Amino acid sequence: MSDVVVGIDLGGTNVKTAAVSADGRLLGKDSRPTRSEEGPEAVMENMAGAVAAVLESAGVDRSRVQAVGIGAPGPMNWQTGIVYSSPNLPGWRDVPLAEAMSDRLGLAVYVDNDANVACYGEYWLGAGQGVDTMCLLTLGTGVGGGIVVFGKLLRGIDGTAAEIGHLKVMREGRTCGCGATGCLEAYASVTGMVRTAKEGIEEGRETLLTTLSGGDFDRLTGKMISDAARQGDTFAQWVERETGIWIGIGVSSLINLLNPERVVLSGGMIAAGEALFGPVRETAKAMAFDVPARRCEIVPAGLNEDAGVLGAAACAMDRHAGNVR
Amino acid sequence: MSDVVVGIDLGGTNVKTAAVSADGRLLGKDSRPTRSEEGPEAVMENMAGAVAAVLESAGVDRSRVQAVGIGAPGPMNWQTGIVYSSPNLPGWRDVPLAEAMSDRLGLAVYVDNDANVACYGEYWLGAGQGVDTMCLLTLGTGVGGGIVVFGKLLRGIDGTAAEIGHLKVMREGRTCGCGATGCLEAYASVTGMVRTAKEGIEEGRETLLTTLSGGDFDRLTGKMISDAARQGDTFAQWVERETGIWIGIGVSSLINLLNPERVVLSGGMIAAGEALFGPVRETAKAMAFDVPARRCEIVPAGLNEDAGVLGAAACAMDRHAGNVR
Repeated sequence: MSDVVVGIDLGGTNVKTAAVSADGRLLGKDSRPTRSEEGPEAVMENMAGAVAAVLESAGVDRSRVQAVGIGAPGPMNWQTGIVYSSPNLPGWRDVPLAEAMSDRLGLAVYVDNDANVACYGEYWLGAGQGVDTMCLLTLGTGVGGGIVVFGKLLRGIDGTAAEIGHLKVMREGRTCGCGATGCLEAYASVTGMVRTAKEGIEEGRETLLTTLSGGDFDRLTGKMISDAARQGDTFAQWVERETGIWIGIGVSSLINLLNPERVVLSGGMIAAGEALFGPVRETAKAMAFDVPARRCEIVPAGLNEDAGVLGAAACAMDRHAGNVR
Repeated sequence: MSDVVVGIDLGGTNVKTAAVSADGRLLGKDSRPTRSEEGPEAVMENMAGAVAAVLESAGVDRSRVQAVGIGAPGPMNWQTGIVYSSPNLPGWRDVPLAEAMSDRLGLAVYVDNDANVACYGEYWLGAGQGVDTMCLLTLGTGVGGGIVVFGKLLRGIDGTAAEIGHLKVMREGRTCGCGATGCLEAYASVTGMVRTAKEGIEEGRETLLTTLSGGDFDRLTGKMISDAARQGDTFAQWVERETGIWIGIGVSSLINLLNPERVVLSGGMIAAGEALFGPVRETAKAMAFDVPARRCEIVPAGLNEDAGVLGAAACAMDRHAGNVR
């Protein structure tokens, strides 16, 4: 009886692994350092060890595992399971992750983009439950995205769909890491938020951030900004609000394009709560059509750290059943 | 044997009607003035007459018609078939179009948004044939849109999806007819193109358009701009190019979000050919990720005037078979 799926969330810092029942119960979890500095072979050996550990701790025999899903950072090809490269995984060049892990584990292995996987996890068991159409934005160093339409994860023919961070929100705007200009990510990510702060400071705005960063604005972090904002620093509060407005502009495009029932925000930035969600919701409401704007709930992620492992498990289960194109 | 579908394209100026076989052959066509100034009842009577005429000319007995599809301007509700209002149909307020036409014709009637219907027509029999994911932009007074994903027309839970003209491309940009700012439509429509020309002229640019408009720039039209461009007017050529760049920015967002195999442009503006498609393609390529940008063909519509009637027929056929949610 193959009633268990294993989900792996392969991050640059940690590998998280979980055994999950077909109906979505977490049977066992494992988290360990990725040891990415040791290169792909060591990381894969590490993941194989995590799978063994999690099955043992859950008391699940390997024969009960129908498939293993991995959420991996890109660029990559979900159909072949090859990871082309990754800023967070040094030394990874065209690594046949699905095949190599399948050989190690003697199990079917499916690889998907990490933000897509997190979106599908939220759809299955988190803040996206019960809807037909949703979007997820992961607000971190960059802005990742996932889209579910018609109840299915939208991967795209090349697996590059749902790059919500690379919606254009400003012609001739900031240069983005992707090489284009005016991408949402250049404003709405933590990096973008820090950039907004730096630009404001360079214009001579007074702020606690001068003290918090020791006067070295290259050391500014998202945490410093949220700390300063919580301490009542008007400038830091403005920076948070600006970031929320940019996110809201991107969300309004999603609402007008997809008429989603829910837009889920995740990542450390959402700890700011209403200070972030307030301007996001106001802007989305002002900039999108009334009917779909009223329909769309803009909510925080529900699964926190587990979205990746649960979503990777769900993706593997779907793909193993042949439900994916 | 119900092997025929009737498609109606309800425009502000003309009603186009066609009898279509289930496998996509045009059996008969009709086009007549909408007579929208006479109000909803007269327009619907007019449409019923067109259906009778087209069936007669095609030699098709009414018993062979499985359903009638209408592509109507919005805002409207495709599920109830009610048209709330329309700038091009004076006096239309909450008209139960599907029900009233069904009563008149004694046939099942399905109403959908006109741009969605045109997209589905192109998908079925035009420039979108053979793909799984595509977008259509109708470049006219406004910018309408349609999206097919997973081989299905994306209507959205409220029927408001695919409003491609209301992607945000510029923070604090031009005010749009929808009430928001910075929408693609405010730059990429014919109206937006004329606005770009006016702004340039107000900045003192020299152009043939001064002569063509008789010095009254409120009389400027898209046609004057394309005429001037073809006559070698540098300013008019710049206006066309700018418009293409804006369209390309919107298309790059679609490429990054949906990884479509094709983006189809339609409307009178596409007569400009390479002068428009050149900058659209260049901009989309420069602003979108490489892999999906290489994948996506940006092409002119293939069905011209027939996209609406064929798409309306296809939508009705799908919905009648229960293939739509």
